[in-house]
Amino acid sequence: MSTTDKPRSRSKARPKRREGAGLKRRQREIVDTAAEIFYRKGYSETSVQDVADAVGILKGSLYYYIDSKEDLLFQMLREVHEDAKSIVTDTAALDIPPLERLRIYVQRHVEYNARNLARIAVYCHDFGLLTPERREAIVGQRDYYQDFVQGLIQEAQGRGDVDPSVDPALISNAVFGVVNWLYTWYQPDGPASPEYLGKLYGEMIVDGVTGGRMPEAPTPRGAT
Amino acid sequence: MSTTDKPRSRSKARPKRREGAGLKRRQREIVDTAAEIFYRKGYSETSVQDVADAVGILKGSLYYYIDSKEDLLFQMLREVHEDAKSIVTDTAALDIPPLERLRIYVQRHVEYNARNLARIAVYCHDFGLLTPERREAIVGQRDYYQDFVQGLIQEAQGRGDVDPSVDPALISNAVFGVVNWLYTWYQPDGPASPEYLGKLYGEMIVDGVTGGRMPEAPTPRGAT
Repeated sequence: MSTTDKPRSRSKARPKRREGAGLKRRQREIVDTAAEIFYRKGYSETSVQDVADAVGILKGSLYYYIDSKEDLLFQMLREVHEDAKSIVTDTAALDIPPLERLRIYVQRHVEYNARNLARIAVYCHDFGLLTPERREAIVGQRDYYQDFVQGLIQEAQGRGDVDPSVDPALISNAVFGVVNWLYTWYQPDGPASPEYLGKLYGEMIVDGVTGGRMPEAPTPRGAT
Repeated sequence: MSTTDKPRSRSKARPKRREGAGLKRRQREIVDTAAEIFYRKGYSETSVQDVADAVGILKGSLYYYIDSKEDLLFQMLREVHEDAKSIVTDTAALDIPPLERLRIYVQRHVEYNARNLARIAVYCHDFGLLTPERREAIVGQRDYYQDFVQGLIQEAQGRGDVDPSVDPALISNAVFGVVNWLYTWYQPDGPASPEYLGKLYGEMIVDGVTGGRMPEAPTPRGAT
């Protein structure tokens, strides 16, 4: 959609967006609202008009904050990654053994996902609907925390805490399975609080990787 | 789409479908092909014509086997559930302790998912696009194997092998996280074979639930 066919709520041409705390806060509110609608109704089935109605502003005013529906999706996924990144940074700074950092990382990430169910659901489900360039940008950010978990496993393998024959990427994928699958079943008004769930899965995962019953790693297929 | 506007590959009216091994095999082939296209291109972006072209038959002939694109999706998901159900039945019949049955169940289900990546991806991603009635039918089938895993956990709790204070449903959800998330990352031509991955995750999960470091269960929120 070009800028010319967007209805305007102001008589003058759209002013250049200013960066600032107020703008950021408003943008976050819009993204929050959009996440809820995308989650409930489906991204493909939601229009920019639906989002404007839910935010309570004119569609033209919404275009002050976003360029398109896909832009809204991109902002949402970028925010999820920024949040996830700060969980990584905070956990990486802890001066404790690698598996303790893993336990705390899982705990915090599970808590975050349980508290941000709509965004996580949209993230897990609609990631593929971004334009290829933006998908690349998000994939790059995703590597950041996958690398973090793989690094913890490698560190633990170096200390003899985890079977060194296992590919850290396979363990990391299992960790993110537990953490991300949550969006398909978690009920915010159910009996399990985000804190409890975080602790439970943090312990389960650390016990799972230290159990010492890992099967012998096979000769890699097609290894050169 | 009504039956009248479907092109026909035969001059007579469509004969009533006969049940039989040949029909079943052909239907399975069509579903297999459709799964690959849905996986690669996206369900919403795929037309019945695309499926017919890939199968190598006329669109009209395809309607001998399916009623609509959504029907194809439903058949696909039903087949996944039938396969998953037979894994449950075979594993349930084993005369071994509950956690050994869990280990073998995870091993078999992970192997199945790794070998049927396209179907599992479509299942996990496009389940919500079924009509509400059919969605209900699939949810009912899904309960079957979630109940199985929860039953194994309960049995293990009864024997003192798993902390009895933990809700078996929360453990079961973590198990299916590991098992299902596979569709987002598994590379069939990568170094990890389906068998190895099945064994690895089977061990990790059993170790995870028996580690004995489960956090104390909280007082249920909103308990009466």
